[in-house]
Amino acid sequence: MQMTNQQQQYDRGITIFSPDGRLFQVEYAKEAVKKGATALGITYDEGTVLAATRSTPELQVRNPEKVFKVDEHLGIATSGLVADGRKLVDEARNEAQKHMMTYDEEIPTSVLAKFIADRCQHFTQYGGVRPYGLSTITGGIKDGNPKVYHTDPSGTLNQWNAIAIGKGREEANEHLEDEWERDLSEDEAIDLAVSALKEGEEDIELENIELSVVDEKDNFQRFTPEDLDEKGVEF
Amino acid sequence: MQMTNQQQQYDRGITIFSPDGRLFQVEYAKEAVKKGATALGITYDEGTVLAATRSTPELQVRNPEKVFKVDEHLGIATSGLVADGRKLVDEARNEAQKHMMTYDEEIPTSVLAKFIADRCQHFTQYGGVRPYGLSTITGGIKDGNPKVYHTDPSGTLNQWNAIAIGKGREEANEHLEDEWERDLSEDEAIDLAVSALKEGEEDIELENIELSVVDEKDNFQRFTPEDLDEKGVEF
Amino acid sequence: MQMTNQQQQYDRGITIFSPDGRLFQVEYAKEAVKKGATALGITYDEGTVLAATRSTPELQVRNPEKVFKVDEHLGIATSGLVADGRKLVDEARNEAQKHMMTYDEEIPTSVLAKFIADRCQHFTQYGGVRPYGLSTITGGIKDGNPKVYHTDPSGTLNQWNAIAIGKGREEANEHLEDEWERDLSEDEAIDLAVSALKEGEEDIELENIELSVVDEKDNFQRFTPEDLDEKGVEF
Amino acid sequence: MQMTNQQQQYDRGITIFSPDGRLFQVEYAKEAVKKGATALGITYDEGTVLAATRSTPELQVRNPEKVFKVDEHLGIATSGLVADGRKLVDEARNEAQKHMMTYDEEIPTSVLAKFIADRCQHFTQYGGVRPYGLSTITGGIKDGNPKVYHTDPSGTLNQWNAIAIGKGREEANEHLEDEWERDLSEDEAIDLAVSALKEGEEDIELENIELSVVDEKDNFQRFTPEDLDEKGVEF
Amino acid sequence: MQMTNQQQQYDRGITIFSPDGRLFQVEYAKEAVKKGATALGITYDEGTVLAATRSTPELQVRNPEKVFKVDEHLGIATSGLVADGRKLVDEARNEAQKHMMTYDEEIPTSVLAKFIADRCQHFTQYGGVRPYGLSTITGGIKDGNPKVYHTDPSGTLNQWNAIAIGKGREEANEHLEDEWERDLSEDEAIDLAVSALKEGEEDIELENIELSVVDEKDNFQRFTPEDLDEKGVEF
Amino acid sequence: MQMTNQQQQYDRGITIFSPDGRLFQVEYAKEAVKKGATALGITYDEGTVLAATRSTPELQVRNPEKVFKVDEHLGIATSGLVADGRKLVDEARNEAQKHMMTYDEEIPTSVLAKFIADRCQHFTQYGGVRPYGLSTITGGIKDGNPKVYHTDPSGTLNQWNAIAIGKGREEANEHLEDEWERDLSEDEAIDLAVSALKEGEEDIELENIELSVVDEKDNFQRFTPEDLDEKGVEF
Amino acid sequence: MQMTNQQQQYDRGITIFSPDGRLFQVEYAKEAVKKGATALGITYDEGTVLAATRSTPELQVRNPEKVFKVDEHLGIATSGLVADGRKLVDEARNEAQKHMMTYDEEIPTSVLAKFIADRCQHFTQYGGVRPYGLSTITGGIKDGNPKVYHTDPSGTLNQWNAIAIGKGREEANEHLEDEWERDLSEDEAIDLAVSALKEGEEDIELENIELSVVDEKDNFQRFTPEDLDEKGVEF
Repeated sequence: MQMTNQQQQYDRGITIFSPDGRLFQVEYAKEAVKKGATALGITYDEGTVLAATRSTPELQVRNPEKVFKVDEHLGIATSGLVADGRKLVDEARNEAQKHMMTYDEEIPTSVLAKFIADRCQHFTQYGGVRPYGLSTITGGIKDGNPKVYHTDPSGTLNQWNAIAIGKGREEANEHLEDEWERDLSEDEAIDLAVSALKEGEEDIELENIELSVVDEKDNFQRFTPEDLDEKGVEF
Repeated sequence: MQMTNQQQQYDRGITIFSPDGRLFQVEYAKEAVKKGATALGITYDEGTVLAATRSTPELQVRNPEKVFKVDEHLGIATSGLVADGRKLVDEARNEAQKHMMTYDEEIPTSVLAKFIADRCQHFTQYGGVRPYGLSTITGGIKDGNPKVYHTDPSGTLNQWNAIAIGKGREEANEHLEDEWERDLSEDEAIDLAVSALKEGEEDIELENIELSVVDEKDNFQRFTPEDLDEKGVEF
Repeated sequence: MQMTNQQQQYDRGITIFSPDGRLFQVEYAKEAVKKGATALGITYDEGTVLAATRSTPELQVRNPEKVFKVDEHLGIATSGLVADGRKLVDEARNEAQKHMMTYDEEIPTSVLAKFIADRCQHFTQYGGVRPYGLSTITGGIKDGNPKVYHTDPSGTLNQWNAIAIGKGREEANEHLEDEWERDLSEDEAIDLAVSALKEGEEDIELENIELSVVDEKDNFQRFTPEDLDEKGVEF
Repeated sequence: MQMTNQQQQYDRGITIFSPDGRLFQVEYAKEAVKKGATALGITYDEGTVLAATRSTPELQVRNPEKVFKVDEHLGIATSGLVADGRKLVDEARNEAQKHMMTYDEEIPTSVLAKFIADRCQHFTQYGGVRPYGLSTITGGIKDGNPKVYHTDPSGTLNQWNAIAIGKGREEANEHLEDEWERDLSEDEAIDLAVSALKEGEEDIELENIELSVVDEKDNFQRFTPEDLDEKGVEF
Repeated sequence: MQMTNQQQQYDRGITIFSPDGRLFQVEYAKEAVKKGATALGITYDEGTVLAATRSTPELQVRNPEKVFKVDEHLGIATSGLVADGRKLVDEARNEAQKHMMTYDEEIPTSVLAKFIADRCQHFTQYGGVRPYGLSTITGGIKDGNPKVYHTDPSGTLNQWNAIAIGKGREEANEHLEDEWERDLSEDEAIDLAVSALKEGEEDIELENIELSVVDEKDNFQRFTPEDLDEKGVEF
Repeated sequence: MQMTNQQQQYDRGITIFSPDGRLFQVEYAKEAVKKGATALGITYDEGTVLAATRSTPELQVRNPEKVFKVDEHLGIATSGLVADGRKLVDEARNEAQKHMMTYDEEIPTSVLAKFIADRCQHFTQYGGVRPYGLSTITGGIKDGNPKVYHTDPSGTLNQWNAIAIGKGREEANEHLEDEWERDLSEDEAIDLAVSALKEGEEDIELENIELSVVDEKDNFQRFTPEDLDEKGVEF
Repeated sequence: MQMTNQQQQYDRGITIFSPDGRLFQVEYAKEAVKKGATALGITYDEGTVLAATRSTPELQVRNPEKVFKVDEHLGIATSGLVADGRKLVDEARNEAQKHMMTYDEEIPTSVLAKFIADRCQHFTQYGGVRPYGLSTITGGIKDGNPKVYHTDPSGTLNQWNAIAIGKGREEANEHLEDEWERDLSEDEAIDLAVSALKEGEEDIELENIELSVVDEKDNFQRFTPEDLDEKGVEF
């Protein structure tokens, strides 16, 4: 990030606008996401694919780290500070349960994504805290409608057909723009997710991929690298 | 924004007046709005038009982003930080519901606009927060009276026949002053909204326009670019 | 405002006295008022006149902006930050209602003016806030006694027969001192108000004047520029 | 006030002692009093006199500004920031009423003066506020004992037979020391008060004097300049 | 107080240790005491003597200022900021009453002195306040045991047979060390108190002395300069 | 740690992101761990081994210092600030008891480790505190599944087959990667723990080792250096 | 304490880690202890000895100052800021009473020592306070087991057979390491305590020693210098 002298006078607190109306602390938190592992969400005909790259050192046990199940038809992929991710996903799960208890139905994808974005915005307007160093991709399906939402540290919220975040976002998004179409099958969507991550981070292997699918038939499903290999995912 | 040496000594906190009685943090928040997408509100014979420019990247799904429905006869267009906009619109919707429950009638446009302006003022007088980086245009109709109000980050509130904010505000407002008349029809008001936005931001297309109309017959209605095109809006 | 080097070391917080016992943040807030539109209050035989200058851009709707009704026999004219004015007038209206409910009588002008001054003083003694950037003129009549009070950002409170504030205060006050007499009629008081504002700000027109009269017969009454013109107010 | 380099390092907050054990913010608040209008309190045989100088601009209405009635046998004269004075006098009146309700007797002068001094001390020991920029002279009579107490911004409290504060304090106090005697009559005490104020501020006229007497026969009584003139006060 | 460059980096807040483990703000508060009037406490066979120097300007009424009665068998002499002294003595009186109500016996001298010391310590460990600029000498007698305790701004507490504080402490303490013996009579103890104060501040007169005796026969008794003179106190 | 000029402008508070999205205070807290004694956790066929190096000065009594029992099937090894460690282990024990009371079963290892990580994350997002200067290794067994989790000051949480932290982590982890296998016996796992610590800190002796084993048969067991020597652990 | 330039940038607040993971404010608080009087605790066959050096000025009454009784079988010796010591011992006594009331048994030495350490840790992690400038040695006996624990300002807690703190700690600890043995008699332990203090501070006399013994037969017992002399303690 290119810095100017002036910038340094307005970038130490979340409650300070710069003379040209910028919030530098939010922009710096976005930098934490730009360095994070690539993550993406893709909608297809009957569901959504959530995926992210990861590296699992030799003796580490492979647990969910970037792609989380929230409830049966809803998952979240994150990029940025991993501890912030775990905390925000916890809050999201809690919100999902409250919704279930209050309305006796699963929380709609859009409602949960808005909840996450509002939490992020809150940490940009009051002093004494820092913004979340995290972007999220919430993917789910309800009443046959697969949906993917993106939030960033400022609390901005948008719905996408397909989107990638993190350090490989530029190449991955180009690839998604080129290849995504409206009526992908599940297998095609998985193939697209894997190839987009590979565009984003060239030196990854299949074992560096964490991938889940959310559809109405099988609900939230994890695919291990071995599953992907068996499915014959091109790599 | 031209800066002086002195200015830099008084511009780091919302609770500090400069020696000439200015609140620089409020002025900087206004800069955030000046960079925002152009938005406008226009009253016509039987309702109000709210509209804004936007850009929807290729794979993004087009959801309301700058023009929001608050209740059946009331909407808000925003310019500035989008996450601030979503939050303030949420507060406005909440206030509108409270009004409905308490008085069993829809909230008058003026009451809601004043609520928004008071929220903004509050964030300019107490420390530990930042001002809202947002201007709003609240448009509605009640008892046959269409009304449009404008608020800015300082909490200033004014009623207008027609007003534009954001980066194209100067040209758009000139256009409105030239063209607005008291007894516009709905179609004329929509045409005026579109042409004013085009004056403000020269390189936009019809697809960059988010537009809603509030009248007593059809309540709050969204017009997609396709709707506008069908209606034969000049562009 | 002429500044010295020393001044700059003591002017960043409301809770800091300068070595010579001044509160610079209060003085800076007064500067905000000195730049505000001229406003005035005049007592006459049977009531008070409250007036202020304003500019209404072409498409703006003319609503009360500087002169506010508080209850049937009481109004407030303000000069300074307009959002601060709206907020303080709201608090005043609330106080007036509480008085009515508690004592079953309209709040006396002096009691309301003291309430306003106390609010202003409060924001000069505790940290974490800024002073109100506002002066007020409260005018009313009770039991046949017309009264006008002035408050400034420090919370100073004084009763006047006639007083002007804002950017034209010097010339307007000179004019009031020359022309005000104890037994003015309503028409004479209105004429005096208009001519004093004109002395204060030379380039205004009748349409730049917001004026109200409070008397026991007709209670709080607004006069539009057209009303003033009809009455034959000299301009 | 002569300033040293070192002083400037310890004078920005009320909770900071300087290396030689001084509280500069308290001393600066005292400077605000030294610039205030001269005020004084004098005990005489059967009561106390409270007086102060003031200037009333041409159109201002003459209300109590420096000498306040607290209850039937008790008054307060102030010097310093006038809004602080009004607030502290309000608190004193409140305390006097609470005493009356609790004990069914008027508050003794010493108890009220101690209340005021304690309030002032409180604002010198806790952060986030500023000291009161005010000195007070509390005068009253109870059970035949006229008493006068003085408080300053540090919360120091002393009882005096006669004392002057504010910008003319030095000459006024010299005059009081020369002229005050134990068995003054009311008229002599009034004469002494007026002459001491005149010693303190040479260019004042009788109309610049605000004076009240508290005795057991007539309780708290105000004397206008006209009253003083009628009484034949030497000037 | 000799200052070093380093010192100035650690002396602005009570919650900051210097690199060599000192609390400068506490040390600066002690400076305020070193400049205070000399005060002392002496135990003798059947009671304690508390005394202090003071200056009473010509028209000031002589009230207790440095030596205070707390209850029948207990008094406190103070040196330092007089308003802090009044406040801490108030708290002590309150504590003494609570003890009386709870245990139906007078508070022991040691318990009250510890209460005072604990209050002082509290103001040295938490931010947002300043230390008490005050040392106290608590003297009393209970069950035939006269006791004198000393506290300083750090909250240090010690019991003494005789001790002096304030600006004349060094000479006064030398004198006490030379002259104090275990079985002094009341008159000898009074003589010793007066002569020690005179050693501490050479130019004082008998009228500058405030002195009280606490014993079991006569409880807390004040001696005016006239009383002392009558008793034939050497001066 | 290599420092740049820029770094020093963003490293004084936990709520400040640097321009490149880093949280320096968290990184500095990690430095405290990198200087801590080496600690490790190893899973084996039927349990987990937790161990750490320590030095016990001559007269010190050897109590648990780095490896703590939480409940019958759960322990924690820590590295970093020892007082932080004791406090966080206390919180963990409390959480474990609450789980037992609420669900009538021992807390799963993963749940407790997540609790610890969440506590650490909390101290990285809110101002007015510092991060925990501590990493933990939580090891336990439940339903026949031995598990080891690692947390760091940022609140990052991962599950491992074997992991070492503290000053000897690099060599110790290399050794674990070379030697760890899935079906170690208890004795092999103990041998591996000891040899890995020895790789990490070359000059330790058996008496510098604190080691515990958690399995289903014998629950949480401590092994003294003498126990280890008797078992014939190679050193 | 040797200082570097970098150190000075991270040493003003307890919530700031330095780049190499140190907490300077805690280290500075330890400096306050290093300057304190030497204190020690020694376990022997049937109890513990607590002792400290002190100087009692000529007229001071000798009360416990460094070695405090907590309950019948428990005492605390302190070194550092004496007011902090009194406060922390008060908290410890309170905790001991709560334990007695809750469990109907005397608090174990280890539980009380942990309580003290936890209090100290708390003041190192939250802003707005300073660490305790105090180390403690808690000594007691329960069920025939004499125990001695040490805490420092960071909250570190360790159990010792014998340990010395304060300005003479280095020589005193060397002496303890040379001379302490497991089966000392009470008289030998007292001799060792006195000789270790003398090693630590060469110029002390027997009258500078405060010493207590805690055993099961005689509970907590104080030994005056005269007692020690009578016992024939070597000096």
